[in-house]
Amino acid sequence: MGRWEPGAAGRLAQAALELYAERGYEQTTVLDIAERAGVTERTFFRHFADKREVLFDRSNALQETVVAAVAAAPPDLPPLEVVGAAMERAGVFLEDRREFARKRAAAIAANPSLQERELFKMATLGSAVATALHARGVSSPAAAIAAEAGVAVFRLGFERWVSNDDAPDLPACIRDSLAALRALTA
Amino acid sequence: MGRWEPGAAGRLAQAALELYAERGYEQTTVLDIAERAGVTERTFFRHFADKREVLFDRSNALQETVVAAVAAAPPDLPPLEVVGAAMERAGVFLEDRREFARKRAAAIAANPSLQERELFKMATLGSAVATALHARGVSSPAAAIAAEAGVAVFRLGFERWVSNDDAPDLPACIRDSLAALRALTA
Repeated sequence: MGRWEPGAAGRLAQAALELYAERGYEQTTVLDIAERAGVTERTFFRHFADKREVLFDRSNALQETVVAAVAAAPPDLPPLEVVGAAMERAGVFLEDRREFARKRAAAIAANPSLQERELFKMATLGSAVATALHARGVSSPAAAIAAEAGVAVFRLGFERWVSNDDAPDLPACIRDSLAALRALTA
Repeated sequence: MGRWEPGAAGRLAQAALELYAERGYEQTTVLDIAERAGVTERTFFRHFADKREVLFDRSNALQETVVAAVAAAPPDLPPLEVVGAAMERAGVFLEDRREFARKRAAAIAANPSLQERELFKMATLGSAVATALHARGVSSPAAAIAAEAGVAVFRLGFERWVSNDDAPDLPACIRDSLAALRALTA
């Protein structure tokens, strides 16, 4: 389910986004989404636990990408470099879906319940990164703060990418965001 | 409602914590909480919008404390110092409630819905800090990343303070957490 393909999961996500934009998240049912995507409610629930999750279809794959990049980084790279490079990889992973990401960001911004789910996904990503840094031998406070800083760098880069027409590609936005963090502590 | 006092809001928060620990968050109703606190359901709703909010009775006051500290910092202090000092003030504000904070952290850790609300409060705090930094003339990417980093510093200091018997007081935990961030980017 990680790949974006014209299968049911992708059609459901697209249908959900359309409906949330047209009539609002609260007014949209799972049945509405399934019908718009041309599948049954049962198929919806085979892919997603609820009508929030349908907007987070790539969050597991995103997390796997980031964790794998942390694990694969050269052993002597400092923690913040490791995390920065991993977040850039996340940027490459998402780069092809800018229009989808924009609509999705608008839907999330309009609904506190979706914002909470988004924050939860980001927190989960942070914990996974901290664990992956631990596994590289990075000690406790450094691993945790590097992971949190990395997620902040990703989020701010992502926000710029979806909200600003003049923004460069997502990996570049993430790199700029990391540079801003470095400048702050210089 | 900001101060912790033996009034209704405080009794409701205490009652909610006890009940969440005894029977779980899902199994506890607003009526249960009101009865345990010796007030009516109506009084509950005068203080809190729902049974999640009852655990966040000081979050507004906390945010006001942090924002005021950002505004009051010396004009030439670099953004990360401003935010670090403001988060330390937040630590002073919460320092007297360690036992409550521990029970509260346990209740939140046991329930995804409470975790989401907690993350939302932290994100709101981050936005407020970014706005306060803007008002000081800090430019856009620096203000946002400094605010996010500050919230991460606060959260990690807070986590250590509630989960570790040997931890120093909360302001010191927050200071250590800021030092870990600085070491990361040194």
